[in-house]
Amino acid sequence: MSSRHPTPDQIRVDEVMSALGNPLRLAVVRVLADGGEHNCGSILDGVSKSTLTHHWRVLRDSGVIWQRPSGRENLLSLRREDLDARYPGLLDAVLAATKTDEVSER
Amino acid sequence: MSSRHPTPDQIRVDEVMSALGNPLRLAVVRVLADGGEHNCGSILDGVSKSTLTHHWRVLRDSGVIWQRPSGRENLLSLRREDLDARYPGLLDAVLAATKTDEVSER
Repeated sequence: MSSRHPTPDQIRVDEVMSALGNPLRLAVVRVLADGGEHNCGSILDGVSKSTLTHHWRVLRDSGVIWQRPSGRENLLSLRREDLDARYPGLLDAVLAATKTDEVSER
Repeated sequence: MSSRHPTPDQIRVDEVMSALGNPLRLAVVRVLADGGEHNCGSILDGVSKSTLTHHWRVLRDSGVIWQRPSGRENLLSLRREDLDARYPGLLDAVLAATKTDEVSER
């Protein structure tokens, strides 16, 4: 893993909240919540590469995702074990909240 | 209440996360978590009035706090019932997370 991934005890909730405080990054987290690794190019359509690179960095530096090089791309996955261990219930509450919002918007 | 307070169904989790994604605003929320109303001038020391005004606005507009005029000041309180009803477990998980971080920093 890159040295820019914080260790579990370097993760801070204000940085996690800030990383999740964006509709696009929340959408990424919802995709990654299936527990798998996803190719960074396959998660969101219609977003420029430079914009995506910024969002991956925010998610990675805050400790929300792992980013692993694979050929010319990166594989992304949610740091669910680290987040659940450090902040029990937080990620589940956030994921449930995104579903509540989705219903409100229909 | 001011019209700039969102109704419960206008609250969005990305805006709540963004509002909480700041150490100072998290500190405010921890103070207000006692359930009481607090005079806006008494919550944080050593922060300029214009900075505080910005933070109150972010917290109010995202639906995290009530802001109620009282004389020349404002009284602030946490919208715990609205947040708990809309996003069960979220606020409690965030408050617990701030305690985890506090322990890490000692």
